[in-house]
Amino acid sequence: MKGFTLWFTGLPCSGKSTLAKHVEEILLERGVPVEVLDGDEVRENLSKGLGYSKEDRDINIRRIGWVCKLLSRNGVVAIAAAIAPYQEIRDEVRRWHDRYVEVYLKASIESLKERDVKGMYKQALAGKIKNFTGISDPYEEPENPEVLLETDQETVEESVNKIIRTLELLEYIPTAETETEYSADEEEKIKTRLKDLGYI
Amino acid sequence: MKGFTLWFTGLPCSGKSTLAKHVEEILLERGVPVEVLDGDEVRENLSKGLGYSKEDRDINIRRIGWVCKLLSRNGVVAIAAAIAPYQEIRDEVRRWHDRYVEVYLKASIESLKERDVKGMYKQALAGKIKNFTGISDPYEEPENPEVLLETDQETVEESVNKIIRTLELLEYIPTAETETEYSADEEEKIKTRLKDLGYI
Repeated sequence: MKGFTLWFTGLPCSGKSTLAKHVEEILLERGVPVEVLDGDEVRENLSKGLGYSKEDRDINIRRIGWVCKLLSRNGVVAIAAAIAPYQEIRDEVRRWHDRYVEVYLKASIESLKERDVKGMYKQALAGKIKNFTGISDPYEEPENPEVLLETDQETVEESVNKIIRTLELLEYIPTAETETEYSADEEEKIKTRLKDLGYI
Repeated sequence: MKGFTLWFTGLPCSGKSTLAKHVEEILLERGVPVEVLDGDEVRENLSKGLGYSKEDRDINIRRIGWVCKLLSRNGVVAIAAAIAPYQEIRDEVRRWHDRYVEVYLKASIESLKERDVKGMYKQALAGKIKNFTGISDPYEEPENPEVLLETDQETVEESVNKIIRTLELLEYIPTAETETEYSADEEEKIKTRLKDLGYI
């Protein structure tokens, strides 16, 4: 199988790690080799010492992107779950790849604040955390993500299905033999997105 | 195929990058997926900003080791060509792996100085380069490398053959169908080493 990189970008608490794990599980069940590069784990193993300035964030994303490139060109599905707030660097990493799928996890600040068990949004809104993406640090919304998830309006299952169905339609992964859970309406939306992006 | 990590350790100019490239070529010819993580390239992509203190060197080696782990557990042969002067970190990286082959490129300082086209040894010996491994910075010789190369006494071809033959005997790579170039004497030495290490 040819590998590819699946990049989950979105604000803190938007569900990147959770969805990455679910997608990993499904791909492993289908016999696809997967590595998840999760923001926190990567900060420990690749980027200790880097902070949250634009420069440091860019370096961090490039490092993750570089590892994704090495993995994906060797037949592995590399899943990155990292905020990646800047369009320019996301595009740079995309250019390093043959097959690259951007998944944007869109959610309102209000919904993220509610979901945030650690109370980081509250602290950031109170001015206690500097460089907190979405509050005291920029997040540039992806312009043309292959997958658009509205994680404040969808269930985890719906989001996961959208991703998996997109990968199937791109023929990046084998189609499941079991019955699918997608509504005709959802399938139509996914196809329209991929058509608009020139994939199908 | 199951992946593994092949780590080339040795002093500057001992031949790590050169041998890594030769081995990469042979493995690719045999249909084995390979990634070479070369010291300089890694410094650019993973470790920009790190210096040459023990602490920074250790971080650099751990990062390379972490990427090797991700690659090798997904069926890729990860070849690291990096000085890795400290035994403790080499052993730590080894422990992260299921299959790990250490290749020690042994050569006298005198021979390295002659080989050094950039004149770095000369400068280091004159006290002009700080933290130059082997001169003004430590290099702890590997205690039990799977492959011992004496690159000041062997041709590149002999060194490459030793590595490839070791990998064949370990059954980490398929044996070549073409005639081999190893002398009975050399083969005996390789087997003795692998027996001493408990492999065969």
